[in-house]
Amino acid sequence: MNLYGLENMPYGVFRPVNGAWRVGVRLGDNVLDVYELLGDPVFATRNLNAFLAQGPRKWADVRARIREFAETELPAGSVHSIDKVELKLPVAVGDYVDFYASIDHATNLGRLFRPGSEPLLPNWRHLPVGYHGRAGTIVVSGTPVARPSGQRLVDGTPEFGPSQRLDIEAELGFIVGSGARGPVAVDEFRERVFGVALVNDWSARDIQAWEYQPLGPFLGKSFATSVSAWVTPLAALEDAVIPLPPQDPEPLPYLRGSQNFGLNISLEVTWNGETVSWPPYGRMYWSPAQMLAHMTANGASVRPGDLFASGTISGPTRDERGSFIELSCGGSEPVNVAGDSRTFLLDGDTVTITATAPGTAGRPIGLGEVTGSIVAAR
Amino acid sequence: MNLYGLENMPYGVFRPVNGAWRVGVRLGDNVLDVYELLGDPVFATRNLNAFLAQGPRKWADVRARIREFAETELPAGSVHSIDKVELKLPVAVGDYVDFYASIDHATNLGRLFRPGSEPLLPNWRHLPVGYHGRAGTIVVSGTPVARPSGQRLVDGTPEFGPSQRLDIEAELGFIVGSGARGPVAVDEFRERVFGVALVNDWSARDIQAWEYQPLGPFLGKSFATSVSAWVTPLAALEDAVIPLPPQDPEPLPYLRGSQNFGLNISLEVTWNGETVSWPPYGRMYWSPAQMLAHMTANGASVRPGDLFASGTISGPTRDERGSFIELSCGGSEPVNVAGDSRTFLLDGDTVTITATAPGTAGRPIGLGEVTGSIVAAR
Repeated sequence: MNLYGLENMPYGVFRPVNGAWRVGVRLGDNVLDVYELLGDPVFATRNLNAFLAQGPRKWADVRARIREFAETELPAGSVHSIDKVELKLPVAVGDYVDFYASIDHATNLGRLFRPGSEPLLPNWRHLPVGYHGRAGTIVVSGTPVARPSGQRLVDGTPEFGPSQRLDIEAELGFIVGSGARGPVAVDEFRERVFGVALVNDWSARDIQAWEYQPLGPFLGKSFATSVSAWVTPLAALEDAVIPLPPQDPEPLPYLRGSQNFGLNISLEVTWNGETVSWPPYGRMYWSPAQMLAHMTANGASVRPGDLFASGTISGPTRDERGSFIELSCGGSEPVNVAGDSRTFLLDGDTVTITATAPGTAGRPIGLGEVTGSIVAAR
Repeated sequence: MNLYGLENMPYGVFRPVNGAWRVGVRLGDNVLDVYELLGDPVFATRNLNAFLAQGPRKWADVRARIREFAETELPAGSVHSIDKVELKLPVAVGDYVDFYASIDHATNLGRLFRPGSEPLLPNWRHLPVGYHGRAGTIVVSGTPVARPSGQRLVDGTPEFGPSQRLDIEAELGFIVGSGARGPVAVDEFRERVFGVALVNDWSARDIQAWEYQPLGPFLGKSFATSVSAWVTPLAALEDAVIPLPPQDPEPLPYLRGSQNFGLNISLEVTWNGETVSWPPYGRMYWSPAQMLAHMTANGASVRPGDLFASGTISGPTRDERGSFIELSCGGSEPVNVAGDSRTFLLDGDTVTITATAPGTAGRPIGLGEVTGSIVAAR
């Protein structure tokens, strides 16, 4: 099944062997050189940012023109086999914000990090809780991830050493297109956000558990965040729009709007080739438009290329959990992975997250993949 | 007294009326055009980043050459009166990390945010607690600061509106010079860090108090962070190096090293022209070299232009507190400001933070200023 047909056409940045970096569009197993097609220097660059900054009319126009080429005739030299090109991080990320928008994930983690207390803190149903991550350590899918060392408690005593509880977080990331000074209303979502990418927010749970109070996660997350090489434009996700699950209590007015929707995107997490989870993005409590409105409600600006992610996507059932700390109940209930009994990541492990969504042609479209293998601590 | 003599020479980015942006060095009340002096295109730019990336040998060489010009003869056209130039944010900040390195501040805030609990959390004396802030809303000194709106509790109910507890945080910021893949050892501090700037990390305490658990400060901080226009190179602070106050327990080995020193920098906070506090940087518990080593211990890279700040600088006495929430004991004990009884910031208020340090010529040197005035919520 072709998950990358005309109704998908995600954007990336690629180069052929010995070639220059170009903006490309994926079509089937090929990459189209957009600069070659359209001749616009905005596509002869190392990232999508300049194109993103041009705004939604330009995005629509470019998509229509590429489609026209693809439906009629693609010039020789504009088509590359995807196996023959190198892909890089598609955007230069200014600020990276990670939210915590899944009620199942927040509940599961609350139980594990604060046993004996109410798992969901009092603010959780009133606002999309989020924090800033490290933009400088965002890497493209395929980049090896070195096991981080750090301070964590061993038998109640702080020690420094390689994390023993290295985990994933399967997430959906939203890439800001045209920048704006905040506040950005819920109903400006489609105008400001260009598209989505898959995100694996690698997490060292032992480092995180010791450091995170009172200022939040820091070194437990900042060693690496992997992002898919392909950015799926919102234009390809029109038929994936679904109602948001009910929100109770009703959010304050600045978090309401007609663009306050969910997306019917199904993720799949494979661990050393074995599928271990199917996180359902459609079950997320807070919508991406609410996250953007909240993030800018204080007047904060957003810039083209900013990334904000959903936080771990977990559904209510066990096989829908988007992190291994949840899948293994904090490490107490190992998971069967290709015949081995496993809790957290070992050196040499590979995790790949893929996703599909209903496409506008009535067929599913693919959202690329975000993959990474763990290498030993340096 | 001239706080900006030959032994100081901080760097900034300026332009004369109708002129181009240039790297400049402050000498007395003049700005020297470094591009005009040295002819190197690395100084004909909008930020210091390219120069920072060249590393410590280049920094020392450039400083020596500028000094030689200033001691002999400055070419016509290379000297501008500081009153006649515009100054901008001197660096393009990649990642911004804010620490929490003052034991007095952390204790005061712990009491106010978590009354009835131990004010200092168990991790505080073992590692420099920190978090990522928003790089895209860092502004240069003088930029007006709009009062942020946001969600906060009013009589126990979440409401959206302008912050009623707008505060400052008087801090010292460290600007990464040459980038590196982590870990960066404590003893690489002088090689990696170019210099210091004054920082005011404006904080909306009501927004922060409601949002910050469990992932840390977010919208209570992300609306604006002001930074001085002048970056004082570490080379000018050699005689400001002092021993760090005692640390108990002894830090883990990755936080030890011979460059683990404090800096004898005295800040002064004025509120509408009246001095309200003298925060002593020399009293900080965690050193800047420890902050850098900790921030990169997990393998995280740093980039030229990254900013990491100390967190609020507070000393043990009341008139050494670097935030108004501390000065006013959470708003319960108003402060006398130019005849008015005050707690948090009102629209129209101006806060200016200045600082001095012992210079290498036996006289104090100035660290510029970071100033900002509050304008009404948008």
